[in-house]
Amino acid sequence: MRATTRSGPVRSEAARRAILSAAVELLAERGYDQLAIEAIASRAGVGKQTIYRWWGSKSAIIAEALLEGMILRERLDVPNTGDIRADLGAWLREIGDVLLSKQGQGLARSLIAAATDNAEVGQRLRDAIAGSGALSTRLTAAIENESRLAADAPIDEIAESLVGALLLRALSRSQLDDDAIEGLITVALGHAG
Amino acid sequence: MRATTRSGPVRSEAARRAILSAAVELLAERGYDQLAIEAIASRAGVGKQTIYRWWGSKSAIIAEALLEGMILRERLDVPNTGDIRADLGAWLREIGDVLLSKQGQGLARSLIAAATDNAEVGQRLRDAIAGSGALSTRLTAAIENESRLAADAPIDEIAESLVGALLLRALSRSQLDDDAIEGLITVALGHAG
Repeated sequence: MRATTRSGPVRSEAARRAILSAAVELLAERGYDQLAIEAIASRAGVGKQTIYRWWGSKSAIIAEALLEGMILRERLDVPNTGDIRADLGAWLREIGDVLLSKQGQGLARSLIAAATDNAEVGQRLRDAIAGSGALSTRLTAAIENESRLAADAPIDEIAESLVGALLLRALSRSQLDDDAIEGLITVALGHAG
Repeated sequence: MRATTRSGPVRSEAARRAILSAAVELLAERGYDQLAIEAIASRAGVGKQTIYRWWGSKSAIIAEALLEGMILRERLDVPNTGDIRADLGAWLREIGDVLLSKQGQGLARSLIAAATDNAEVGQRLRDAIAGSGALSTRLTAAIENESRLAADAPIDEIAESLVGALLLRALSRSQLDDDAIEGLITVALGHAG
């Protein structure tokens, strides 16, 4: 995928990055529904045909940007102060704030819309936020270094549950208040009597 | 909302039901993206203008159908045999099967797409499946009649986590296998050491 000087349908890396960046910017500004290939091409300084040659649809562009960590990467880091309960609380509060902001809510809904459109986006979204992501890593560290989580705690499903609950909040635009955050932490860390 | 014999923009109950039913059928058959007001009107035997007079958008029609329990109601009943672990397993297996079917997956993605489009649909979707719904009722019964759940277990957040995890599965089209079901039940019922 390096730029070459040959002519023809060779994918230039510079153009590819420009197109992905333009798509990510426009996604945040306008939302998925209003995202048009023409606008992406114009902002990236390439022809529409260049985009159509490389990607089948706008959702495929978003999938590639997700895969490359151009969306969501920094926002989803879970802090590690050695106290999993406090760290999960800080993480949930930050995501709750993002989901309350107009831009964050737009991005969340745009990604969800792209995922309903394209199975690959769905898988990558799940991987990016629940699978091999920061949350699972933090939970695994809690098993190894803290006593809050049992050695056989189902890490993948805990991560999936938390991310899924956030998704549901994003869809219903409902605020994540302190009680809800406490409840979700309790679900994540276990509440068996 | 009863039918009347007066002329003018009175909402006839029969026409309203016919429109909602047509929308629900077409949603299942074609998906949200391909759902057109014109097709709804044609199947319901009303004019397009009748629909536009009563609803602002197709997502508003879906929201009303959701609210009236015309979508999702039967599918989401949680069995109550007195054993919450077995009942959650049966419920998750059934939803997992629905989500693997082409029609079920289409419906799930259609509802999610409608929710990204319209905050009201999002709230109603959340209420229908997580809020005052069958799952919370079943979990509350488990607190009262069984010893599996502590009296102060965060019912709302447990329901939200389970439904959210299912939503994430629907988006990523990934199979809900036995291990995942076991993991989710453990998250729901608590895993503190």
